[in-house]
Amino acid sequence: MSSQKAWAVIAGVGSGTGASVARRFAKHYAVALLARNPDNYEPIAKEINAAGGKAIGISTDASDSKSVKAAFEQLEKEFGGAPLAAAIYNVGGKFIRKPFLELTEDEFESGWTANGRGAFLFSREVLPLMLKNTDAEYPPTLIFTSATAAMKGSALCSSFATGKFAMRALAQSLAREFGPKGIHVNHAIIDGVIDIERTANWKFDHPEAKIKPEAIADAYWYLHTQPRTCFTNEIDIRPAVEKW
Amino acid sequence: MSSQKAWAVIAGVGSGTGASVARRFAKHYAVALLARNPDNYEPIAKEINAAGGKAIGISTDASDSKSVKAAFEQLEKEFGGAPLAAAIYNVGGKFIRKPFLELTEDEFESGWTANGRGAFLFSREVLPLMLKNTDAEYPPTLIFTSATAAMKGSALCSSFATGKFAMRALAQSLAREFGPKGIHVNHAIIDGVIDIERTANWKFDHPEAKIKPEAIADAYWYLHTQPRTCFTNEIDIRPAVEKW
Amino acid sequence: MSSQKAWAVIAGVGSGTGASVARRFAKHYAVALLARNPDNYEPIAKEINAAGGKAIGISTDASDSKSVKAAFEQLEKEFGGAPLAAAIYNVGGKFIRKPFLELTEDEFESGWTANGRGAFLFSREVLPLMLKNTDAEYPPTLIFTSATAAMKGSALCSSFATGKFAMRALAQSLAREFGPKGIHVNHAIIDGVIDIERTANWKFDHPEAKIKPEAIADAYWYLHTQPRTCFTNEIDIRPAVEKW
Amino acid sequence: MSSQKAWAVIAGVGSGTGASVARRFAKHYAVALLARNPDNYEPIAKEINAAGGKAIGISTDASDSKSVKAAFEQLEKEFGGAPLAAAIYNVGGKFIRKPFLELTEDEFESGWTANGRGAFLFSREVLPLMLKNTDAEYPPTLIFTSATAAMKGSALCSSFATGKFAMRALAQSLAREFGPKGIHVNHAIIDGVIDIERTANWKFDHPEAKIKPEAIADAYWYLHTQPRTCFTNEIDIRPAVEKW
Repeated sequence: MSSQKAWAVIAGVGSGTGASVARRFAKHYAVALLARNPDNYEPIAKEINAAGGKAIGISTDASDSKSVKAAFEQLEKEFGGAPLAAAIYNVGGKFIRKPFLELTEDEFESGWTANGRGAFLFSREVLPLMLKNTDAEYPPTLIFTSATAAMKGSALCSSFATGKFAMRALAQSLAREFGPKGIHVNHAIIDGVIDIERTANWKFDHPEAKIKPEAIADAYWYLHTQPRTCFTNEIDIRPAVEKW
Repeated sequence: MSSQKAWAVIAGVGSGTGASVARRFAKHYAVALLARNPDNYEPIAKEINAAGGKAIGISTDASDSKSVKAAFEQLEKEFGGAPLAAAIYNVGGKFIRKPFLELTEDEFESGWTANGRGAFLFSREVLPLMLKNTDAEYPPTLIFTSATAAMKGSALCSSFATGKFAMRALAQSLAREFGPKGIHVNHAIIDGVIDIERTANWKFDHPEAKIKPEAIADAYWYLHTQPRTCFTNEIDIRPAVEKW
Repeated sequence: MSSQKAWAVIAGVGSGTGASVARRFAKHYAVALLARNPDNYEPIAKEINAAGGKAIGISTDASDSKSVKAAFEQLEKEFGGAPLAAAIYNVGGKFIRKPFLELTEDEFESGWTANGRGAFLFSREVLPLMLKNTDAEYPPTLIFTSATAAMKGSALCSSFATGKFAMRALAQSLAREFGPKGIHVNHAIIDGVIDIERTANWKFDHPEAKIKPEAIADAYWYLHTQPRTCFTNEIDIRPAVEKW
Repeated sequence: MSSQKAWAVIAGVGSGTGASVARRFAKHYAVALLARNPDNYEPIAKEINAAGGKAIGISTDASDSKSVKAAFEQLEKEFGGAPLAAAIYNVGGKFIRKPFLELTEDEFESGWTANGRGAFLFSREVLPLMLKNTDAEYPPTLIFTSATAAMKGSALCSSFATGKFAMRALAQSLAREFGPKGIHVNHAIIDGVIDIERTANWKFDHPEAKIKPEAIADAYWYLHTQPRTCFTNEIDIRPAVEKW
């Protein structure tokens, strides 16, 4: 089975960044698409398979260790000894903006659950597989989709910010531990609104005020192709017109 | 009861920073000392009461919402309408240093539990009380004892670093929301080994390589006395000889 | 002459922070006040001397090596072997805000001249004197008055921001070299408008939107009193209502 | 002349990064190579011209306004109305590592001269040209080659660090002013030793401890191709095995 095509796994696949990343990486690899709701990955999986690529979707709760474990057991069967080339953790959780004293414990925790615990559960599945593939042309790559909230704890955003700060800490720690072992870990700060269905009605003065998800996917692909002497461990991505 | 002496509450009181902070703030305020194990707060509570101050200890699990709620209900009875002048969250949790792939889920989560969830539970109890006391001579002050790990995710330290990054995010978010309401929130980066019983045998070349907990307490007291036009929201504290 | 009272030197003394710092440190030390224009230091020098303190003013161009050298030669004569306890570099230069392509070379350079070169010239005079005084009760302290522009290069502010970023780099480098030798170096980020004559007409919605210079002086004095096991190398100071 | 091929200009061309960047951008554009010493740009200019590309070298002192102005007047004649696609400022100056109190004023200033003033002089020449070319397929791109010293002021490195901090401030300020006008400005933190002639004898335990300049050139080219909705304003580049 070692002759199987290498694969990539993307957790958090909807109609936006996840789908674009899946499409981009599917040009080179089989892709596994994880999302809680099959409605989120089925359209893009069909599209990729119809276009001659290979895509598998698995319903997964990224913050539940059993669900994540089960997903990777299924992927193991599906892909066997095929090398894991890339893993993108694109789960963001719900963005909650409300006065601190109105947050329930569950609401506060949700930032951590999606961005901290989920990132941990995903990382501990993909890293052992990647360690077997460090001789690949492109070093195995683990990318975390993050946000401005990883750099600044804004008022009313403590849930999301604690989660994204934690994600950044995890990405740094993994980059320092697994970089020398040949794995490329990157924390990608997406600083701006992404141009997706959900934001289609968000109006801005400037026609290019939203980030194209295809451009994020190109950035992730570029990161994946960086050689071992030239890793980028943190990248920021924002529209030219963004205030920052 | 409004004529009662103002009080301060310190969560995470052992023989080190917490005890020194308690001693320092007890010169001006009644102090409530929270720790899971009464052995940790009893000696310093006795010492303060014997010296003519007022200290109350309550056994509390800082990461459990019921336990925290119960502690503050008890404090409400104890202090009634007396103003809350300062709150120091000094719970750090266990520092775990081990290869990422050897971490259990519980070990990984423990950083968050102590530094993220616990800080949230504490903050939502103290902030409403502080909001009633913004006319005090010294603005009510909420300080989080943090660490270098809040600034850098080192290899093998993902549990602690994710927790401390999250704590920093929370502190920033609260400072931005509650500063304009008259509450002073500070994130204190303690960058170095503290000179306490547990570290007594840690040998360094330099006689002043460890931070004196009394000096940290003085720093916290200074922060507490800053007027509303001059808040410090982040402070770093390290020995002169520390590498950083 | 070694029995002479210790002294402090403040470069950049006008009616605001510099004067308040001078007043604060003059309670404990003789103070040397440097400014280009004697009009700037004379009132505060007179005030201090009239109140029983000791203050000397010297007209100095902080960005000119000969002028700085001459000032310290004069101070050497004045204070002889008396120990130098503290040095505050409070020169900020002109804040220029204009489109980049309209900046003259001189305008662009002025940020560096005041905040980079001037800080260098001052530091190389005071550090050798401080190295002779590391046994003092309070470690000799070198503080650089800086600004938000040290942390963020805003549009239209390249001159000031390059200067303040450079000042921060210098402060960090000196802290790391001279901390282990017993000298406390601090970079103070003053994030907000200071309440001085020049800003008296700047209106804000909130009555406490401006930083009181006396409070900055208190912060600097607190920093000066920190013991060798507990140095703060960077402090931020802002009004409670400031957006950041 | 407007039908002329677009061009790129690279300041600081030697045998390392500058030459690799020139080679990479010469695949798409005519390239102008600036260096003080013609020996530095002549070999790569010859190589590019021999391979069918177009390269022009001009002897330029990047920190001297007259020299920089003269160079761009000559380039104006050479390229006429041809669009300027990219500009890379790759001048680093001498890295000086010595005790602060042994630095001469000139040594200290040299960090600023190369990284601050030189970057200013270059920017004010290229930005007006780029503003005429914002309709190009790839947004005109201005990249500053920077270093770890832009993020941390290490002991004994105050000259280099003040210069690189200043360069970062300038890059941020320009990105915020010119991004909305369609120009992509990037600050590239090269964190590690580059694999060039001068470092050929620097031995490391790991065979991939040095950054390949070709990989830096690929990174710069990727940055140049980013669309306006997806600019990266700061990138870090380091070997997988680098400690950071």
